[in-house]
Amino acid sequence: MGNATRIDIADGILTLTLARPEKLNAYNPEMHGEMIAAFDRADADDDVRAVIVTGEGRAYCAGADLSAGGATFDYGGGSEWRSEETPVAADGSVDYSHPAIRDGGGLLALRIFASKKPVIGAINGAAVGVGVTMTLPMDVRIASDTARFGFVFARRGIVPEAASSWFLPRIVGISNALDLCFSGRIIGAEEARGIGLVRSVHAGDDLLPAARAIAKSYVEGTAPVSIALTRSMLWHMLGAPHPMEGHRLDSRAIWSRGASADAREGVESFLEKRAATFPDRVSRDMPHFSPWMDDPAW
Amino acid sequence: MGNATRIDIADGILTLTLARPEKLNAYNPEMHGEMIAAFDRADADDDVRAVIVTGEGRAYCAGADLSAGGATFDYGGGSEWRSEETPVAADGSVDYSHPAIRDGGGLLALRIFASKKPVIGAINGAAVGVGVTMTLPMDVRIASDTARFGFVFARRGIVPEAASSWFLPRIVGISNALDLCFSGRIIGAEEARGIGLVRSVHAGDDLLPAARAIAKSYVEGTAPVSIALTRSMLWHMLGAPHPMEGHRLDSRAIWSRGASADAREGVESFLEKRAATFPDRVSRDMPHFSPWMDDPAW
Amino acid sequence: MGNATRIDIADGILTLTLARPEKLNAYNPEMHGEMIAAFDRADADDDVRAVIVTGEGRAYCAGADLSAGGATFDYGGGSEWRSEETPVAADGSVDYSHPAIRDGGGLLALRIFASKKPVIGAINGAAVGVGVTMTLPMDVRIASDTARFGFVFARRGIVPEAASSWFLPRIVGISNALDLCFSGRIIGAEEARGIGLVRSVHAGDDLLPAARAIAKSYVEGTAPVSIALTRSMLWHMLGAPHPMEGHRLDSRAIWSRGASADAREGVESFLEKRAATFPDRVSRDMPHFSPWMDDPAW
Repeated sequence: MGNATRIDIADGILTLTLARPEKLNAYNPEMHGEMIAAFDRADADDDVRAVIVTGEGRAYCAGADLSAGGATFDYGGGSEWRSEETPVAADGSVDYSHPAIRDGGGLLALRIFASKKPVIGAINGAAVGVGVTMTLPMDVRIASDTARFGFVFARRGIVPEAASSWFLPRIVGISNALDLCFSGRIIGAEEARGIGLVRSVHAGDDLLPAARAIAKSYVEGTAPVSIALTRSMLWHMLGAPHPMEGHRLDSRAIWSRGASADAREGVESFLEKRAATFPDRVSRDMPHFSPWMDDPAW
Repeated sequence: MGNATRIDIADGILTLTLARPEKLNAYNPEMHGEMIAAFDRADADDDVRAVIVTGEGRAYCAGADLSAGGATFDYGGGSEWRSEETPVAADGSVDYSHPAIRDGGGLLALRIFASKKPVIGAINGAAVGVGVTMTLPMDVRIASDTARFGFVFARRGIVPEAASSWFLPRIVGISNALDLCFSGRIIGAEEARGIGLVRSVHAGDDLLPAARAIAKSYVEGTAPVSIALTRSMLWHMLGAPHPMEGHRLDSRAIWSRGASADAREGVESFLEKRAATFPDRVSRDMPHFSPWMDDPAW
Repeated sequence: MGNATRIDIADGILTLTLARPEKLNAYNPEMHGEMIAAFDRADADDDVRAVIVTGEGRAYCAGADLSAGGATFDYGGGSEWRSEETPVAADGSVDYSHPAIRDGGGLLALRIFASKKPVIGAINGAAVGVGVTMTLPMDVRIASDTARFGFVFARRGIVPEAASSWFLPRIVGISNALDLCFSGRIIGAEEARGIGLVRSVHAGDDLLPAARAIAKSYVEGTAPVSIALTRSMLWHMLGAPHPMEGHRLDSRAIWSRGASADAREGVESFLEKRAATFPDRVSRDMPHFSPWMDDPAW
């Protein structure tokens, strides 16, 4: 339990609630750290099968906390995100390959990308700036009918972040992505649904039950290791140049999982027309069959 | 004519029918071999201009034949797909880079990917597991109103195969792809149409006529070599990192085809307002202008 | 002002009009050169914030000018696009890696891809062949209700060009892309909207006002350098293999822009609830933080 977020676990679902309602759940370094810790915890705990992310109060997340004013995004200057290490040389030149140049929203986005559990965004209100880009690596987004979305970066003199340059065009198409970012306009839940940004729209009270129903459909009757591998395989192959990479990857995954106790149980339970009880655990039985599984972003 | 499939050729269209109706056209090594041979035949025969794939009876393909029970997917053990060569060392460790680790569905998917003729899936009933993933590299999928689709892998303790980790997100979007594979739920033809998995839905008796009408629209008035190159170009560029690759590829293709007898006939017939008669043949006149055209997956 | 096109600048919007109405705005080397010059001019002029491309008369662009008849696409022979340099050796063999092999439509497409200003296609009538493929790297396409679209290449014995093998599947999906190119059929404005080829359809008189309203929504209240970077980031990341590339890119862009006068003004004006006045200029203040920003296609 942190200061900026709240975690509840029930029925195999970890619900992560952004909990700075008086600040419209504005994103700050504390929230950032707590969110990453929540995904670490979800991955490490075999009793957690899915994650829901939502916000407390009337907003989901209104964007970066702007308490530092005009210096908010000045990472070499007055920003509260400023790191000890600096890519700025004595003469003022910037080394753009310096490891200190890592956008905070992007570190969160990559952490969600690497989640071993399905992630559902239940967007209960305004999602603006990093408030919406943080949801793009989630597997499914649903919204309350009061939700609003804004990619307002060009209106603040900055640019899309949280790796949204990669995620957004793949979710809503390049033309919608550019239109949203060029105009910076705020769109409602129905328009968001029309362009594929969210999957469905719900009355406020129905939002979390709907998210839980989706999570439940992923959890019941499925093998946890299969789900974790499936998630990584599909997200990773989304950008891969050639289907041969998909073939190489899923050949290894099928070979590995096909010999597992889970596969035996999965087929036998199906043939016997009974519910399956899968013995394998994500914490113990995830196979290792590709060099990039050592990558922190796997 | 094999034991597991049937081939008919009429009006320049090769119809490949999965023909184990008593087994709901379950996929086994025999069907695998016959399907690959059918695509080889279609590519080699200039009189075949398009391919339709459909199923006999009430299913399209119910998935892998599970006769081997819990060992079905144990490719180092009791699977009927087991190869002579094995990637398993004496100490039980697996060499995941071993060439024996090639998923059968993926070999078929890559063979369809490389087809020189347009491929239309006419999905007449249940398409589950490899029964649906084998259709993803087809150019167009249409369905009967009794068709059903299921990406049930996580319910069997395995993972998506047939290179579907690459194909599926590109066809239905990443969020729908994950949702289908996480839940393993069975969807109907209309839902499949809504997410772009199939193009149109037809009464059962209208399915094959509709597939033939589509094939006919690709065959009449078009140059066979142009069609073969177009198919390869668009599928290959679907994963390419930069439009410069598309420019390099189609510059060469246009240069090559622009000097052909087909281009002369195509422009002249247009200017003379008459039907074109294209002289070039796929078996003889396919240009070679890129190293990856030697790739078996071209 | 050229012979094949017309340029008007008003309210920060450069309107480029294809102006060979008696030839249905058929594409020829003169039009090609003038279009590229127009984009160079738009990029160089800070008073130009967006570009609209449209056609004079009843067509947008009916495709390549076919005055050279059957030799139109014979770039080593009678084509008016023939270059001085030739990739053909004395023995008739072709060096496909020769720099002379560059499709004209593709050079235009890559130039539009690299535009620093948003580009809106206002398609007022028939857009066929290069007439439609040239619009694919534009950010938004809208159409009049009399617009028609045809990817007719296979009917002329040639293949898709203008890097459309890369662009088209990313805009309408691989299945629609193949269907359009296989059949070469002509589709109307409403069908084009249904598959995402155009964003909206308008009565003829409303087309340019609608295009200007979209341009205005990109221009007002946004920072020009943010818009230019956003455009490059999203288009470039559309093909990138891994979200880490997006993270690396936008981390640098945010770092750079976050320290700018634009960001300070953007945040301060927001907090003060007043309109922003962004001081930075594309001609002067574009940051340089990645090797590929030296690439002519950036």
